Amino acid sequence: MKRLLLAATVVAGFATALPAAAQFAKPEDAVKYRKAGMTLIANHFGRVNAMAQGRAPFDAASAAANADLVVTLSKLPFAGFVDGTSSNEKGGAKGNIWTERAKFDDGAKKMQDEVTKLAAAAKSGNLDQLKAAAGGVGQACKACHDDFRNP
Amino acid sequence: MKRLLLAATVVAGFATALPAAAQFAKPEDAVKYRKAGMTLIANHFGRVNAMAQGRAPFDAASAAANADLVVTLSKLPFAGFVDGTSSNEKGGAKGNIWTERAKFDDGAKKMQDEVTKLAAAAKSGNLDQLKAAAGGVGQACKACHDDFRNP
Repeated sequence: MKRLLLAATVVAGFATALPAAAQFAKPEDAVKYRKAGMTLIANHFGRVNAMAQGRAPFDAASAAANADLVVTLSKLPFAGFVDGTSSNEKGGAKGNIWTERAKFDDGAKKMQDEVTKLAAAAKSGNLDQLKAAAGGVGQACKACHDDFRNP
Repeated sequence: MKRLLLAATVVAGFATALPAAAQFAKPEDAVKYRKAGMTLIANHFGRVNAMAQGRAPFDAASAAANADLVVTLSKLPFAGFVDGTSSNEKGGAKGNIWTERAKFDDGAKKMQDEVTKLAAAAKSGNLDQLKAAAGGVGQACKACHDDFRNP
Protein backbone atom coordinates (compact mmCIF):
# COMPACT_ATOMS: atom_id res chain seq x y z
CA MET A 1 0.00 0.00 0.00
CA LYS A 2 2.83 2.33 0.87
CA ARG A 3 4.41 1.46 -2.45
CA LEU A 4 1.16 2.07 -4.29
CA LEU A 5 0.75 5.42 -2.58
CA LEU A 6 4.29 6.36 -3.50
CA ALA A 7 3.72 5.42 -7.12
CA ALA A 8 0.53 7.48 -7.18
CA THR A 9 2.40 10.40 -5.68
CA VAL A 10 5.08 10.10 -8.30
CA VAL A 11 2.58 10.21 -11.15
CA ALA A 12 0.24 12.82 -9.75
CA GLY A 13 2.84 14.93 -8.06
CA PHE A 14 5.30 15.45 -10.87
CA ALA A 15 4.90 19.20 -10.82
CA THR A 16 5.03 19.42 -7.04
CA ALA A 17 7.82 16.88 -6.67
CA LEU A 18 10.05 18.90 -8.97
CA PRO A 19 9.83 22.32 -7.33
CA ALA A 20 11.58 25.33 -8.74
CA ALA A 21 12.88 26.59 -5.43
CA ALA A 22 16.57 26.35 -4.71
CA GLN A 23 17.36 23.82 -7.36
CA PHE A 24 19.90 25.96 -9.21
CA ALA A 25 23.21 26.91 -7.66
CA LYS A 26 23.60 29.97 -9.93
CA PRO A 27 21.20 32.03 -12.07
CA GLU A 28 23.06 30.99 -15.24
CA ASP A 29 22.37 27.35 -14.38
CA ALA A 30 18.65 28.14 -14.43
CA VAL A 31 18.97 29.84 -17.83
CA LYS A 32 20.94 26.91 -19.25
CA TYR A 33 18.34 24.48 -17.88
CA ARG A 34 15.31 26.24 -19.30
CA LYS A 35 17.00 26.67 -22.70
CA ALA A 36 17.83 22.95 -22.74
CA GLY A 37 14.21 22.11 -21.99
CA MET A 38 12.95 24.38 -24.76
CA THR A 39 15.48 22.89 -27.20
CA LEU A 40 14.20 19.38 -26.57
CA ILE A 41 10.56 20.46 -26.74
CA ALA A 42 11.17 22.22 -30.06
CA ASN A 43 12.94 19.17 -31.47
CA HIS A 44 10.36 16.58 -30.49
CA PHE A 45 7.34 18.75 -31.21
CA GLY A 46 9.02 19.58 -34.50
CA ARG A 47 9.02 15.91 -35.48
CA VAL A 48 5.30 15.59 -34.81
CA ASN A 49 4.58 18.90 -36.51
CA ALA A 50 6.50 17.83 -39.62
CA MET A 51 4.11 14.89 -39.92
CA ALA A 52 1.09 17.09 -39.23
CA GLN A 53 2.18 19.49 -41.97
CA GLY A 54 2.99 16.74 -44.47
CA ARG A 55 6.74 17.46 -44.48
CA ALA A 56 7.43 13.96 -43.11
CA PRO A 57 5.55 10.69 -43.62
CA PHE A 58 2.91 10.08 -40.95
CA ASP A 59 4.11 7.37 -38.58
CA ALA A 60 1.52 6.97 -35.82
CA ALA A 61 3.82 5.20 -33.36
CA SER A 62 6.55 7.79 -33.78
CA ALA A 63 4.05 10.66 -33.49
CA ALA A 64 2.67 9.19 -30.27
CA ALA A 65 6.10 8.53 -28.74
CA ASN A 66 7.31 12.03 -29.55
CA ALA A 67 4.11 13.69 -28.35
CA ASP A 68 4.22 11.77 -25.06
CA LEU A 69 7.79 12.91 -24.61
CA VAL A 70 6.76 16.52 -25.26
CA VAL A 71 4.11 16.22 -22.54
CA THR A 72 6.83 15.21 -20.09
CA LEU A 73 9.25 17.88 -21.28
CA SER A 74 6.58 20.60 -21.26
CA LYS A 75 6.62 20.59 -17.45
CA LEU A 76 10.32 21.29 -17.12
CA PRO A 77 11.56 24.66 -18.42
CA PHE A 78 9.41 26.91 -16.27
CA ALA A 79 11.33 26.04 -13.12
CA GLY A 80 14.24 27.85 -14.76
CA PHE A 81 12.55 31.25 -14.93
CA VAL A 82 13.93 32.32 -11.58
CA ASP A 83 14.17 35.93 -10.44
CA GLY A 84 16.94 38.01 -11.96
CA THR A 85 17.33 36.03 -15.17
CA SER A 86 15.78 38.31 -17.76
CA SER A 87 17.97 39.00 -20.78
CA ASN A 88 18.19 41.47 -23.64
CA GLU A 89 19.74 38.88 -25.94
CA LYS A 90 18.00 37.53 -29.01
CA GLY A 91 15.69 34.77 -27.79
CA GLY A 92 16.19 35.86 -24.18
CA ALA A 93 13.51 36.07 -21.51
CA LYS A 94 11.88 39.51 -21.41
CA GLY A 95 11.56 41.30 -18.08
CA ASN A 96 7.76 41.33 -18.24
CA ILE A 97 7.77 37.64 -17.35
CA TRP A 98 8.34 38.79 -13.79
CA THR A 99 5.94 41.75 -13.84
CA GLU A 100 3.16 39.81 -15.59
CA ARG A 101 3.80 36.48 -13.97
CA ALA A 102 0.17 35.32 -13.90
CA LYS A 103 -0.13 35.88 -17.65
CA PHE A 104 3.15 34.07 -18.24
CA ASP A 105 2.07 31.14 -16.08
CA ASP A 106 -1.24 31.00 -17.96
CA GLY A 107 0.69 30.83 -21.22
CA ALA A 108 2.79 27.94 -19.91
CA LYS A 109 -0.33 26.13 -18.75
CA LYS A 110 -1.99 26.69 -22.13
CA MET A 111 0.99 25.09 -23.91
CA GLN A 112 0.96 22.14 -21.49
CA ASP A 113 -2.77 21.66 -22.12
CA GLU A 114 -2.28 21.80 -25.88
CA VAL A 115 0.54 19.24 -25.89
CA THR A 116 -1.63 16.92 -23.79
CA LYS A 117 -4.27 17.21 -26.52
CA LEU A 118 -1.54 16.57 -29.10
CA ALA A 119 -0.58 13.32 -27.39
CA ALA A 120 -4.22 12.20 -27.39
CA ALA A 121 -4.58 13.11 -31.06
CA ALA A 122 -1.37 11.25 -31.91
CA LYS A 123 -2.72 8.13 -30.21
CA SER A 124 -5.92 8.34 -32.29
CA GLY A 125 -3.84 7.58 -35.36
CA ASN A 126 -5.94 10.13 -37.27
CA LEU A 127 -3.86 12.62 -39.24
CA ASP A 128 -6.58 15.28 -39.34
CA GLN A 129 -6.85 15.22 -35.55
CA LEU A 130 -3.08 15.44 -35.32
CA LYS A 131 -3.02 18.44 -37.65
CA ALA A 132 -5.60 20.30 -35.60
CA ALA A 133 -3.84 19.55 -32.32
CA ALA A 134 -0.41 20.50 -33.70
CA GLY A 135 -1.87 23.81 -34.82
CA GLY A 136 -3.07 24.43 -31.26
CA VAL A 137 0.39 23.73 -29.87
CA GLY A 138 2.03 26.01 -32.40
CA GLN A 139 -0.34 28.84 -31.51
CA ALA A 140 0.31 28.38 -27.79
CA CYS A 141 4.08 28.47 -28.34
CA LYS A 142 3.86 31.55 -30.55
CA ALA A 143 1.53 33.51 -28.26
CA CYS A 144 3.88 33.17 -25.31
CA HIS A 145 7.02 33.80 -27.37
CA ASP A 146 5.47 36.93 -28.91
CA ASP A 147 4.73 38.32 -25.45
CA PHE A 148 7.71 37.16 -23.42
CA ARG A 149 10.68 36.31 -25.63
CA ASN A 150 13.01 38.79 -27.25
CA PRO A 151 12.82 38.55 -31.05
CA MET B 1 -6.89 -3.98 -30.36
CA LYS B 2 -5.28 -1.63 -32.82
CA ARG B 3 -5.16 0.97 -30.11
CA LEU B 4 -3.66 -1.47 -27.64
CA LEU B 5 -1.05 -2.48 -30.17
CA LEU B 6 -0.24 1.14 -30.80
CA ALA B 7 0.14 1.81 -27.08
CA ALA B 8 2.41 -1.21 -26.74
CA THR B 9 4.45 -0.01 -29.69
CA VAL B 10 4.77 3.40 -28.10
CA VAL B 11 6.08 1.98 -24.85
CA ALA B 12 8.30 -0.75 -26.25
CA GLY B 13 9.41 1.12 -29.32
CA PHE B 14 10.60 4.35 -27.77
CA ALA B 15 14.13 3.84 -29.01
CA THR B 16 13.04 2.68 -32.46
CA ALA B 17 10.26 5.25 -32.80
CA LEU B 18 12.73 8.07 -32.19
CA PRO B 19 15.41 7.19 -34.75
CA ALA B 20 18.57 9.20 -35.12
CA ALA B 21 18.52 9.25 -38.89
CA ALA B 22 17.72 12.47 -40.66
CA GLN B 23 16.16 14.19 -37.70
CA PHE B 24 18.56 17.13 -37.64
CA ALA B 25 18.65 19.67 -40.44
CA LYS B 26 22.22 20.73 -39.61
CA PRO B 27 25.09 19.11 -37.66
CA GLU B 28 25.02 21.99 -35.15
CA ASP B 29 21.37 21.18 -34.41
CA ALA B 30 22.45 17.68 -33.40
CA VAL B 31 25.16 19.09 -31.11
CA LYS B 32 22.71 21.52 -29.50
CA TYR B 33 20.21 18.70 -29.01
CA ARG B 34 22.60 16.28 -27.35
CA LYS B 35 24.00 19.03 -25.09
CA ALA B 36 20.45 19.94 -24.05
CA GLY B 37 19.73 16.32 -23.20
CA MET B 38 22.90 16.01 -21.13
CA THR B 39 22.10 19.28 -19.32
CA LEU B 40 18.70 17.99 -18.23
CA ILE B 41 20.09 14.58 -17.25
CA ALA B 42 22.80 16.25 -15.15
CA ASN B 43 20.25 18.49 -13.45
CA HIS B 44 17.72 15.83 -12.55
CA PHE B 45 20.27 13.17 -11.65
CA GLY B 46 22.00 15.86 -9.61
CA ARG B 47 18.88 16.32 -7.49
CA VAL B 48 18.69 12.60 -6.72
CA ASN B 49 22.43 12.41 -6.13
CA ALA B 50 22.29 15.31 -3.68
CA MET B 51 19.84 13.27 -1.60
CA ALA B 52 21.95 10.13 -1.96
CA GLN B 53 25.02 12.01 -0.73
CA GLY B 54 23.21 13.73 2.14
CA ARG B 55 23.54 17.22 0.65
CA ALA B 56 19.74 17.51 0.40
CA PRO B 57 17.01 16.04 2.60
CA PHE B 58 15.77 12.67 1.36
CA ASP B 59 12.32 13.06 -0.20
CA ALA B 60 11.28 9.69 -1.61
CA ALA B 61 8.59 11.05 -3.95
CA SER B 62 10.92 13.67 -5.38
CA ALA B 63 13.74 11.15 -5.79
CA ALA B 64 11.42 8.77 -7.63
CA ALA B 65 9.97 11.48 -9.91
CA ASN B 66 13.41 12.79 -10.80
CA ALA B 67 14.86 9.32 -11.35
CA ASP B 68 11.94 8.35 -13.62
CA LEU B 69 12.54 11.51 -15.60
CA VAL B 70 16.25 10.65 -15.92
CA VAL B 71 15.28 7.23 -17.31
CA THR B 72 13.27 8.97 -20.03
CA LEU B 73 15.96 11.57 -20.71
CA SER B 74 18.76 8.96 -20.77
CA LYS B 75 17.46 7.69 -24.13
CA LEU B 76 17.68 11.03 -25.89
CA PRO B 77 21.16 12.52 -26.32
CA PHE B 78 22.74 9.68 -28.28
CA ALA B 79 20.69 10.43 -31.40
CA GLY B 80 22.68 13.66 -31.53
CA PHE B 81 26.08 12.03 -31.99
CA VAL B 82 25.84 12.13 -35.76
CA ASP B 83 28.83 11.84 -38.09
CA GLY B 84 31.04 14.89 -38.39
CA THR B 85 30.21 16.42 -35.02
CA SER B 86 33.37 15.79 -33.01
CA SER B 87 34.82 18.86 -31.33
CA ASN B 88 38.09 19.97 -29.75
CA GLU B 89 36.27 22.29 -27.37
CA LYS B 90 36.20 21.77 -23.62
CA GLY B 91 33.41 19.29 -22.98
CA GLY B 92 33.18 18.47 -26.68
CA ALA B 93 32.72 15.01 -28.19
CA LYS B 94 36.06 13.33 -28.95
CA GLY B 95 36.65 11.83 -32.36
CA ASN B 96 37.08 8.31 -30.98
CA ILE B 97 33.30 8.15 -30.47
CA TRP B 98 33.13 7.42 -34.18
CA THR B 99 36.15 5.10 -34.36
CA GLU B 100 35.16 3.15 -31.22
CA ARG B 101 31.43 3.31 -31.71
CA ALA B 102 30.65 -0.09 -30.16
CA LYS B 103 32.46 0.90 -26.96
CA PHE B 104 30.65 4.25 -26.93
CA ASP B 105 27.29 2.59 -27.44
CA ASP B 106 28.08 0.14 -24.64
CA GLY B 107 28.84 3.08 -22.37
CA ALA B 108 25.52 4.69 -23.23
CA LYS B 109 23.69 1.42 -22.58
CA LYS B 110 25.50 1.02 -19.25
CA MET B 111 24.34 4.47 -18.14
CA GLN B 112 20.77 3.72 -19.22
CA ASP B 113 20.84 0.45 -17.25
CA GLU B 114 22.20 2.19 -14.17
CA VAL B 115 19.55 4.93 -14.22
CA THR B 116 16.87 2.26 -14.54
CA LYS B 117 18.29 0.72 -11.36
CA LEU B 118 18.31 4.19 -9.79
CA ALA B 119 14.60 4.59 -10.49
CA ALA B 120 13.87 1.22 -8.90
CA ALA B 121 15.98 2.12 -5.88
CA ALA B 122 14.24 5.48 -5.55
CA LYS B 123 10.86 3.75 -5.52
CA SER B 124 12.02 1.46 -2.70
CA GLY B 125 12.16 4.50 -0.45
CA ASN B 126 15.38 3.08 1.05
CA LEU B 127 18.18 5.63 1.24
CA ASP B 128 20.96 3.02 1.33
CA GLN B 129 19.67 1.47 -1.88
CA LEU B 130 19.44 4.92 -3.43
CA LYS B 131 23.05 5.68 -2.44
CA ALA B 132 24.34 2.49 -4.01
CA ALA B 133 22.39 3.04 -7.22
CA ALA B 134 23.43 6.69 -7.48
CA GLY B 135 27.04 5.58 -7.15
CA GLY B 136 26.54 3.22 -10.08
CA VAL B 137 25.10 6.02 -12.22
CA GLY B 138 27.95 8.35 -11.33
CA GLN B 139 30.52 5.72 -12.30
CA ALA B 140 28.77 5.06 -15.63
CA CYS B 141 28.71 8.79 -16.43
CA LYS B 142 32.36 9.23 -15.48
CA ALA B 143 33.64 6.19 -17.39
CA CYS B 144 32.14 7.40 -20.65
CA HIS B 145 33.13 11.03 -20.10
CA ASP B 146 36.72 9.99 -19.33
CA ASP B 147 36.93 8.07 -22.60
CA PHE B 148 34.90 10.19 -24.97
CA ARG B 149 34.58 13.78 -23.74
CA ASN B 150 37.24 16.45 -23.94
CA PRO B 151 38.29 17.59 -20.47
